Amino acid sequence: MIDFFARHRATFDKALHACANRYSWTAYPESPSSRIHGEELPRAGKARFEALLGGDYPLSQPGETGRTGAEVSPYTGQPLGITYPKMDVERLYSAVAEGMPDWRRAAPDTRTGVCLEILHRCAGQLFENAHATMHTSGQSFIMAFAGSGANALDRGLEALAYAYKAMADVPVSAHWEREFGKGGAARLEKQYRLVPRGVGVIICCATFPLWNGYPALCANLATGNPVVLKPHPSAILPVAMLVSVAREVLAEAGFDPNLVSLVADTREEPATLALLEHPATAMVDFTGSPAFGQWLEQNCRDKLVYTETAGCNSVVIESTDDLPAMAAAIAHSLCQASAQMCTSVQNIHIPAQGILAGDTAVSFDAVAAAIVGAVEVHLQNPQVLCGTLVDDSILATIARYRILAQTHGKLLRDSGPLDYPDFPAARTASPLILQLSAVERELYRDEVFGPVSFVIKGDSAADCLRDATANARERGAITSHVYSVNEAFLAEAVEAYHAAGASVACNLRGMPINFAAAYSDYHVTGLNPAGNACLTDLAFVASRFRIVQSKRMV
Amino acid sequence: MIDFFARHRATFDKALHACANRYSWTAYPESPSSRIHGEELPRAGKARFEALLGGDYPLSQPGETGRTGAEVSPYTGQPLGITYPKMDVERLYSAVAEGMPDWRRAAPDTRTGVCLEILHRCAGQLFENAHATMHTSGQSFIMAFAGSGANALDRGLEALAYAYKAMADVPVSAHWEREFGKGGAARLEKQYRLVPRGVGVIICCATFPLWNGYPALCANLATGNPVVLKPHPSAILPVAMLVSVAREVLAEAGFDPNLVSLVADTREEPATLALLEHPATAMVDFTGSPAFGQWLEQNCRDKLVYTETAGCNSVVIESTDDLPAMAAAIAHSLCQASAQMCTSVQNIHIPAQGILAGDTAVSFDAVAAAIVGAVEVHLQNPQVLCGTLVDDSILATIARYRILAQTHGKLLRDSGPLDYPDFPAARTASPLILQLSAVERELYRDEVFGPVSFVIKGDSAADCLRDATANARERGAITSHVYSVNEAFLAEAVEAYHAAGASVACNLRGMPINFAAAYSDYHVTGLNPAGNACLTDLAFVASRFRIVQSKRMV
Repeated sequence: MIDFFARHRATFDKALHACANRYSWTAYPESPSSRIHGEELPRAGKARFEALLGGDYPLSQPGETGRTGAEVSPYTGQPLGITYPKMDVERLYSAVAEGMPDWRRAAPDTRTGVCLEILHRCAGQLFENAHATMHTSGQSFIMAFAGSGANALDRGLEALAYAYKAMADVPVSAHWEREFGKGGAARLEKQYRLVPRGVGVIICCATFPLWNGYPALCANLATGNPVVLKPHPSAILPVAMLVSVAREVLAEAGFDPNLVSLVADTREEPATLALLEHPATAMVDFTGSPAFGQWLEQNCRDKLVYTETAGCNSVVIESTDDLPAMAAAIAHSLCQASAQMCTSVQNIHIPAQGILAGDTAVSFDAVAAAIVGAVEVHLQNPQVLCGTLVDDSILATIARYRILAQTHGKLLRDSGPLDYPDFPAARTASPLILQLSAVERELYRDEVFGPVSFVIKGDSAADCLRDATANARERGAITSHVYSVNEAFLAEAVEAYHAAGASVACNLRGMPINFAAAYSDYHVTGLNPAGNACLTDLAFVASRFRIVQSKRMV
Repeated sequence: MIDFFARHRATFDKALHACANRYSWTAYPESPSSRIHGEELPRAGKARFEALLGGDYPLSQPGETGRTGAEVSPYTGQPLGITYPKMDVERLYSAVAEGMPDWRRAAPDTRTGVCLEILHRCAGQLFENAHATMHTSGQSFIMAFAGSGANALDRGLEALAYAYKAMADVPVSAHWEREFGKGGAARLEKQYRLVPRGVGVIICCATFPLWNGYPALCANLATGNPVVLKPHPSAILPVAMLVSVAREVLAEAGFDPNLVSLVADTREEPATLALLEHPATAMVDFTGSPAFGQWLEQNCRDKLVYTETAGCNSVVIESTDDLPAMAAAIAHSLCQASAQMCTSVQNIHIPAQGILAGDTAVSFDAVAAAIVGAVEVHLQNPQVLCGTLVDDSILATIARYRILAQTHGKLLRDSGPLDYPDFPAARTASPLILQLSAVERELYRDEVFGPVSFVIKGDSAADCLRDATANARERGAITSHVYSVNEAFLAEAVEAYHAAGASVACNLRGMPINFAAAYSDYHVTGLNPAGNACLTDLAFVASRFRIVQSKRMV
């Protein structure tokens, strides 16, 4: 058998080192530039994607009862026309069970090696993955290649590193010897074995199909558990492509390919509940809406449930030494991926009396105007930054807030369609920005999914911080930002966000502030309603297996 | 402030090393011999225990509304007459909250040092703890000194080692730097902070009051969480003595003593539910009955719940090369602590056709007789080995099985009182052993708490194994034993028990087979109904804290 672990050992050691020291590192190329990849790879990737359109996706799984799938490209408005196996869950699970004993018995190094090879081959199909992500999730090509591609792969490798660490903490064997009374020494040889929990169901989201896909797959598979991937009905293809790679690698390594399987569905005929209700399902990883995430946390009590959902991410502005750079950074978050990222900013809190920018007093209105102005600059070339809207419902959300603006606050910027010459039918919307005051807080305390944001006038910087952190604690937050040149305020803000169970970033600019770095940023705290699990830490992996032992007198 | 961590560093490093390599080691003296301790320490310990009798236990906690407690010595039948604070939970929790910020902010080394000092001082009161355990749990003095004393302290130190490892996995800070496009390098300083979950309630059991007390206290306290100990109504004193030490050390270290508190109660006025229902309770550690353990697992869904309960521990006998030694080992388990240990054997499976002992064929009846005979030998000096019964209900259980024996199977050995010259009123019972066949399996599949065991006639060794492992899987097991000289059968048995989610010991003799070794034996698998958590592994500690981070552009 090919020693995949040895093949990727250097990369994996580097990942372990990066996790421990949390500096900047990536194992996968983030840029799709032909200067890195040459001309052929991008072309072949696109061709492979196009060849899949309008046909049966080549995936054969036991328990197929027909075909399903109804993806529509947000760029063209046209169905992809790809069909996937429609699964009989009971028959699938029976087949999955057959491969489990061999996989359970395989050494952690072997299983880790298989995962490393899966990630490696997925890195080799980042171009086709980018096209698939673009035409399902609606991301721009660049974002699909990086964010839902290389960055997500890094998260997978990171999760694999933690799974490996947790398993390596358990020795394989031990010699144990002691005296009991006058009977002489008792000598025992002990063997410790890791036992997987059972089937891990991974429910992927529409906007970043593989964001939790790679990490949860690696965390489960490395620790000996089979994996069933349940993609969002609107973004199946990127997940199917991961499943194909995983099955191919498993088979090459001499294991049952059914250890990784796909259960695709449509909105009209959802398959999730059948997976959740199956007694062999031991774990559920979920990325998606707060409502369904909380339902899972409360209703799957006999399973381990790991969720990453969303909250009302905030910015608190107390002061800055560079107003244009700050405004550009915030505006970038409002535009990037049409604010459909779990790290997108929604609530921008500015004190009513304005702020100091350097030595200059800047009014509330002027700060808000700077942000709106920066959005306009970012929108000069929107296709790469904004991508498209994953779902029609976002247009309805925008319309709802446009109407609300007639009776509440002040519309600082209306949303409108974006012009993508290559894709005249693209479903797009530029940011809508609504100014509100804290008395209208029920309008902005929940996640508003899509390019809708709020500039919120607080009585003071302290009030802004209080509001933002209360919302993080009570409604959830994945990212939070503070801008201040005042050390005391920054320290206070860090304490306040931490007390709310939220992480916080201070004075970020000159970089995409939505960016969460694998191997460095602990993504999701698990301490507020925006999710109960972190990508990635020891707690994400340590309970995915248990330990049994045998001891024998010698 | 005293640097407790530095003071105990050598011991702690040794504990970390022992956990990683799982050899035999103990940090605490297991023997109460005056050759080790001198004459004064044992005398002082006994005097301290006696001085506590018939008075108010010296513990002052905010929210005391009166006094409670109704412990009765199983050795004398007399009330201990000790009263403990009766607590208003709401007021107690308010006080607990005051100390939390300072404790949360303390470094992991500081918190670990406080726990090390608590364990160290508890080791200094093992004599008084042994008397307290004897006259509440009913253990013999030797067992109370070792099993519920030194061995339990070792489990506490072990849990502390794991908590420390999990915390040490998260660095304090990192420098992160990378290029984004043409904007130059983005440089971030990141700070990572551990955030405790909240109040950890520890529900202790009657028979081994501190078995989960030390480990759960260390796991919670080291990771920044306050601890509320809820002893069993019949075994409060040992827990109170731990609470006193913990509060004393916390105060000396400059922290709020209310970070560790006691909520004692009586059977008539239980206090557990008020603790479970309090929103500040984030974690529950439980040792006790399977019924309440499963209730906790199913009903405390918004809390982390760690349980160790009980099952029907089994022995499967296929063959042996030393029948007397095997019989003595099994009989020891039937007698030790009157089979009230979570590791006590209950179901002894023997094939109907008998076994090979060396080259000699030994009939089923002869194997059973050897075990019964070995029990008689152990009972020649029962006080040290058997101790007393923790509860009157055990006598009723014995009576019930005596009556059942009239209609089911065959009574191989009846139970009777044991004669303890020093304690004529001691509540005692020798083992009752009932022979059954597998058709009567509903009689032996649940835990029968106390000195009741079953010799079960199986059709074959394979049938014995099938029955024992099915019971482990479906009803739970903490320990399982196999005796065989047949390598193929041993290998099959190991696989079968592991497949049932159970650990297994092979051919143990010449040692107390109930013994579970800290730093070496993973105690409880979490894979069968006898508990969901292991003492101790990374999974026992890794979720007791979360991680928040702040990052700042530099």
